[in-house]
Amino acid sequence: MKLQDVANLIGGELIGDGDIEVTGIGKIESAKPSEVTFISNPLYEKFFSGTSAGAVIVSRRFISSQYERFDDRVVPLIKVEDPYLAFLELLDKFSPKTELQKVGIDETAVVCESAVISNEEVRIGAHAFIGAKVKIGKRVSILPNTVILTGAEIGDDVLIYPNVTVYNGSMIGSRVIIHSGTVIGSDGFGQAKNPDGTFQKIPQKGIVVIEDDVEIGSNCSIDRATIGETIIRKGVKLDNMIQIAHNVEIGENTVIASQSGIAGSTKIGKNCMIGGKVGIVGHISICDGVILTAATNVSKSITKPGLYSGYRAQPQMNELKQEAIIRRLLKNK
Amino acid sequence: MKLQDVANLIGGELIGDGDIEVTGIGKIESAKPSEVTFISNPLYEKFFSGTSAGAVIVSRRFISSQYERFDDRVVPLIKVEDPYLAFLELLDKFSPKTELQKVGIDETAVVCESAVISNEEVRIGAHAFIGAKVKIGKRVSILPNTVILTGAEIGDDVLIYPNVTVYNGSMIGSRVIIHSGTVIGSDGFGQAKNPDGTFQKIPQKGIVVIEDDVEIGSNCSIDRATIGETIIRKGVKLDNMIQIAHNVEIGENTVIASQSGIAGSTKIGKNCMIGGKVGIVGHISICDGVILTAATNVSKSITKPGLYSGYRAQPQMNELKQEAIIRRLLKNK
Amino acid sequence: MKLQDVANLIGGELIGDGDIEVTGIGKIESAKPSEVTFISNPLYEKFFSGTSAGAVIVSRRFISSQYERFDDRVVPLIKVEDPYLAFLELLDKFSPKTELQKVGIDETAVVCESAVISNEEVRIGAHAFIGAKVKIGKRVSILPNTVILTGAEIGDDVLIYPNVTVYNGSMIGSRVIIHSGTVIGSDGFGQAKNPDGTFQKIPQKGIVVIEDDVEIGSNCSIDRATIGETIIRKGVKLDNMIQIAHNVEIGENTVIASQSGIAGSTKIGKNCMIGGKVGIVGHISICDGVILTAATNVSKSITKPGLYSGYRAQPQMNELKQEAIIRRLLKNK
Repeated sequence: MKLQDVANLIGGELIGDGDIEVTGIGKIESAKPSEVTFISNPLYEKFFSGTSAGAVIVSRRFISSQYERFDDRVVPLIKVEDPYLAFLELLDKFSPKTELQKVGIDETAVVCESAVISNEEVRIGAHAFIGAKVKIGKRVSILPNTVILTGAEIGDDVLIYPNVTVYNGSMIGSRVIIHSGTVIGSDGFGQAKNPDGTFQKIPQKGIVVIEDDVEIGSNCSIDRATIGETIIRKGVKLDNMIQIAHNVEIGENTVIASQSGIAGSTKIGKNCMIGGKVGIVGHISICDGVILTAATNVSKSITKPGLYSGYRAQPQMNELKQEAIIRRLLKNK
Repeated sequence: MKLQDVANLIGGELIGDGDIEVTGIGKIESAKPSEVTFISNPLYEKFFSGTSAGAVIVSRRFISSQYERFDDRVVPLIKVEDPYLAFLELLDKFSPKTELQKVGIDETAVVCESAVISNEEVRIGAHAFIGAKVKIGKRVSILPNTVILTGAEIGDDVLIYPNVTVYNGSMIGSRVIIHSGTVIGSDGFGQAKNPDGTFQKIPQKGIVVIEDDVEIGSNCSIDRATIGETIIRKGVKLDNMIQIAHNVEIGENTVIASQSGIAGSTKIGKNCMIGGKVGIVGHISICDGVILTAATNVSKSITKPGLYSGYRAQPQMNELKQEAIIRRLLKNK
Repeated sequence: MKLQDVANLIGGELIGDGDIEVTGIGKIESAKPSEVTFISNPLYEKFFSGTSAGAVIVSRRFISSQYERFDDRVVPLIKVEDPYLAFLELLDKFSPKTELQKVGIDETAVVCESAVISNEEVRIGAHAFIGAKVKIGKRVSILPNTVILTGAEIGDDVLIYPNVTVYNGSMIGSRVIIHSGTVIGSDGFGQAKNPDGTFQKIPQKGIVVIEDDVEIGSNCSIDRATIGETIIRKGVKLDNMIQIAHNVEIGENTVIASQSGIAGSTKIGKNCMIGGKVGIVGHISICDGVILTAATNVSKSITKPGLYSGYRAQPQMNELKQEAIIRRLLKNK
């Protein structure tokens, strides 16, 4: 693609030779002459002097004459409002989608007779298993070795990577993405103690509901409810290795980073941002708009939006004060 | 089922019309007129005024006249000693078991010739793999895409969900349940440092032993011993995403919540209750009857039963005192 | 094998009857008369008095007369410089390798036509899936139900256990071991917030590069880069359930214990030792030779080698001092 075409595509102003051909994208530190790169974070401006990129997408306020180049090449610039968003647009253009699965049902897949599968562009990979009474919508891709058990329902435009397990009765909306190793609908951890110290399994008869536009990373576990539903609301985004226990509800557009865990029956509000390695105990509620920093542990309900952190969660301001006091005590001794 | 039959089934006293038909169970907040619900935790009594349930199982001390109904319906009650246990009994009656796997060996499963499989009601799902010299007992269900490697032995009445991996030589007792994504018998993390900074793998030649009546959640990893055995004793219950390192022993009837990890060669006693996200270092022992609250880290052996907690575990009373002192310091500044 | 042969094999000095036959190895607490054991850690010397082992490998400084035996048997000793290393040598002799997979491509495996697979002793198990344009080197073993997606490349002498997923484009070196349930190349967690609170997926177009001699435990997730590469350098050893986010780089010969997580774009140096349950935030760097104790959380770059620990990482000396001060405060109240 010619640089002028790139500039047009992202609505930018080209400063330099529009006839230069570029064929891909790269990071500013490592981009080749045939690649376009970008500077969004000012911390990366220092790389401008040495980049080999064929062109750099920059913000309108960027002034290249402030940076002395290591060579005397005049690097073409494309000025835009938001270089990162412009770059994301290009990302899709330059990286054609890899076809991971052909349209149709692979001959090695096992599809039970009573399953109802849309005939509109569905892809079911090698050694996949589709159980009895499963329903699968339009343009769904199920990659190799994924297992969908009895009676689960999957909406339209869903992408499920290999080696995923969806237990019986799970309800999955449309435009959902589930990465490999994730388990949807395993039994909640319910064990009733007998007088002799042994435990008796409490049957887990509920289901998991995953609403539209949810993305779930790899190696997550989302347990089915004891009765009723474990619910992941519309637009929730989960990173890898996240534990969602039985009867939990995660509110719309909440994002949770890797290795966090939410214990049973807890309700998380909308638009929360939960960092990595966060732990939240069972049977509490977190209101809308709460931000929990990485490694925070929450043992009581949170009723006011805001930023919380700490080994025992508290408003972050308190926690940092407390840390400072301890550090001062340490110096005085 | 008529309400009178429900009452008889759970040994309860019916107050109300015994001819009302119910067809299922529900939570007090959301049960329909055709469903029975229960109140066990007094916190949920507030929902009595508005529930649409066809009947409510309550404790003998419950007095409905204390709760003004939002409508003038007289809600039938079934009084029992323990409403939760009564409810659990009903749970199984009203939720017929979903058949996840037919009796027999699916034609797409691969079973090595030297495997010995009981002919009494065994179920082996699509694309399962049963390695050489594997032994499988009576009424075992192995769901699709699960892999059992060479020489592993599985007792009677075991249920293994899809996409589980059981490594070679693992010994699994009877009435064990293993959820999807779990790995039994992967190599322990043994690496000997060479003088040049590289590491040499220490061969892991031991096995994993899982005794009777153990349940293991989804996406757990239980590593094989270097030599000898990693042992999960009778009646242990593990939640999801639990890491059990090589040569660990977990005592009878100990329960461990999600995302906890036990490092190598540590021995945990009987009847312990270990919360979620707990970390226990290697080569120590925890005596019988220890309770560790969520997110506790243990770096020394514990020799007295009781409740421990904290970023560095200590008796919980100490930890809470310490927190209070710090909070007071904070206020004074 | 005769004891004299065992002694010769490990270059040791035999004290006792060289004609005794041994057939295996065992731990000092539980070894049988037909087994050889060892004492490396002095803490285990106390077991000498009661061991039933046929012989004990000990260090040259070990003096058996210091230990009164419970019976009057004279236990043969084999004295060596390093009993543990000597024992590891024996470990391989006495435990013949279990054949987990036959040479060749199982007839139930699906191998796409454009895949290029070495014809030198490659093993591909039942129900494995090898995608289009995948390249697989010499003496590679891919166990049952593992999935390798389009265009991934795998070097020589690689061992991949069952139920692993390798996403498209991943580059895996030689002599790499990957345990079950692990996912290589799932999408990085990139979500751009829209003005209405919903999130838009940032396409993850980079790859994962795993260099030579890396071992990865079970149920790990290593995400692909947004652009460029997530890199696991030569000789890195990862335990189970480790999260490596997009664009992370782990330096040569660094070892990481179970349940640790490294957030996006962070760079870890060479020869670091990272304990279990460690969390490291994104966009920072940890220099070479850093040791992080278990459960440490790191939120700022570390620029000096050494030992760090704490809920918020600091040089361990500081953290322990701080703990002591708090404990003293507690006593005074």
